[in-house]
Amino acid sequence: MLIGVTMGDSSGVGPEIALKAYCNREIAHPIVVFGDFPVLEHCNELLGYGVPLRRVSRIDDVSEGFLNVRDLRSLKKEEITVGKPSKKSGMAAREYVVAATKAALDGDIAAVVTLPMNKAATQLSDPKFCGHTELIAELCQACDFTMMLATDELVVTHVSTHVSLADAVKQVKKKRISKVIELTYDALKRFIDKPRIAVLGLNPHAGEGGLFGSEEADEIEPAIEEAKGKGMKAIGPVPPDTAFYLAVRRGRFDGIVCMYHDQGHIPMKLLDFEGGVNITLGLPIIRTSVDHGTAFDIAYKGMASTRSFVNALDFAAKMTGA
Amino acid sequence: MLIGVTMGDSSGVGPEIALKAYCNREIAHPIVVFGDFPVLEHCNELLGYGVPLRRVSRIDDVSEGFLNVRDLRSLKKEEITVGKPSKKSGMAAREYVVAATKAALDGDIAAVVTLPMNKAATQLSDPKFCGHTELIAELCQACDFTMMLATDELVVTHVSTHVSLADAVKQVKKKRISKVIELTYDALKRFIDKPRIAVLGLNPHAGEGGLFGSEEADEIEPAIEEAKGKGMKAIGPVPPDTAFYLAVRRGRFDGIVCMYHDQGHIPMKLLDFEGGVNITLGLPIIRTSVDHGTAFDIAYKGMASTRSFVNALDFAAKMTGA
Repeated sequence: MLIGVTMGDSSGVGPEIALKAYCNREIAHPIVVFGDFPVLEHCNELLGYGVPLRRVSRIDDVSEGFLNVRDLRSLKKEEITVGKPSKKSGMAAREYVVAATKAALDGDIAAVVTLPMNKAATQLSDPKFCGHTELIAELCQACDFTMMLATDELVVTHVSTHVSLADAVKQVKKKRISKVIELTYDALKRFIDKPRIAVLGLNPHAGEGGLFGSEEADEIEPAIEEAKGKGMKAIGPVPPDTAFYLAVRRGRFDGIVCMYHDQGHIPMKLLDFEGGVNITLGLPIIRTSVDHGTAFDIAYKGMASTRSFVNALDFAAKMTGA
Repeated sequence: MLIGVTMGDSSGVGPEIALKAYCNREIAHPIVVFGDFPVLEHCNELLGYGVPLRRVSRIDDVSEGFLNVRDLRSLKKEEITVGKPSKKSGMAAREYVVAATKAALDGDIAAVVTLPMNKAATQLSDPKFCGHTELIAELCQACDFTMMLATDELVVTHVSTHVSLADAVKQVKKKRISKVIELTYDALKRFIDKPRIAVLGLNPHAGEGGLFGSEEADEIEPAIEEAKGKGMKAIGPVPPDTAFYLAVRRGRFDGIVCMYHDQGHIPMKLLDFEGGVNITLGLPIIRTSVDHGTAFDIAYKGMASTRSFVNALDFAAKMTGA
């Protein structure tokens, strides 16, 4: 079971997180980094980590005792622009993702764990680029995907993510909710027997019987009934403001289907700001990601936390059944 | 400094919470309960609390060593319907609130702390009744009010509360946001010097520069600028999913202005489910409330937590400057 790690934008915290986690002996699974060898070498020297780096010739030619690197030869040492997005770094970061996704589709690696790209940097060479997840989904030819956030305590998924709240309200439709419940169930049952899934209401108090909105009755309840009919333990519509307490403090649910981005992100970031993992469901491959950005302001200073990365590796391994 | 406490619906947990808090010596301020003496007497006997009860003749005729009661003579012992809403109990609960609000307006009490009413029970005698807060606002002839939630760690206020999310989006307007920032500032500066107020975005990532919605630029930013112009420390629009972490774990803000009900309620209920306090801002009187309902299922069993009530008393005292 080999996990492919993409190095992320070379101007940000990606390279040092891979090195620091190795140096701290936090990596519990065989990994191969898709990136640029000179970047890792430079960062390793600068921060004095002394990580033994090794180029792999074939993807599965990994050796214990080394941080194994699939060198994509996109960047030279002198092209590193620490803390500043560049056209070259953005293009290179995209290449690592393309290579790792193809390797996963070919079965050469069991999962992909991504370190952060920078949208603006990648758009300098690929103006149509609209996101890390969207790129991977496109490479996989997947269209029904969703973002799952995970901490040690809870996982949540989202009916919509990066759209305005006005649009998010319009996207609360039975078909999409059914799909997200199903994706959530399929993901959880890889490691939980009969997962209990709370499906949230959209409105305050889950609409209070129709007093504040009708989406619960019109769209959410029918999706829950359909899921139950297929044998899933779907519960709801649960009032959004009590669901997270019930899940985390009372152990009532294994996962929560949220109707919009902040319904899930607000409580998850409060529960574990640095350690959260982002998982894309609905792809033919396993992909997890750190839940933070390139953090250009602290790049190459050795300050970045490895927690989200280490958890993303562990979660990817869990998803493979390892 | 005398606080008036309304007993709440006699079928629910209100009466026992007042008695239990007294019995546990959790009440740190002089109080007078607006309610029905026979109800408190019955509950006191049933649960064996042995609280010394005393009828007051005038509101300020309170004696130490007693739980002082302003007996409104609305209900007899045989009219108590434990755990079941009744027309009489709902009507009586309304009377306690009317009497306490008038006493506060007359200056006989310094603040009102309310125990839970039941909307359905009160609607049996007053079909137009739409909520505890709305009733008090009407009695005070106030129209620009807002709900503040408080825990030991944080206070939040809301641009809208009990409306559908679709309507909440439409209510994100500069004039209303300005008013809520001002109410929040006025409330906080009673006990914090130069309070720092985070004003949240409406959309994910606070709209990410207009990519996901324009309410931040069109409505929220102008309101923040206006508040700054009046000398308030208003910060934002802050991305909703990081604001609570920054406030609670990093001590960055004293209060948070939320754009809709669940933006504030989800994190606050997760931070402190049982101890939260509900405060109505924008009234000519000080009013705080427990942040839970009548809990008919556990009424008269002695199981109800007193935490929210005790915190509501403390917060009311804090608001009076005592």
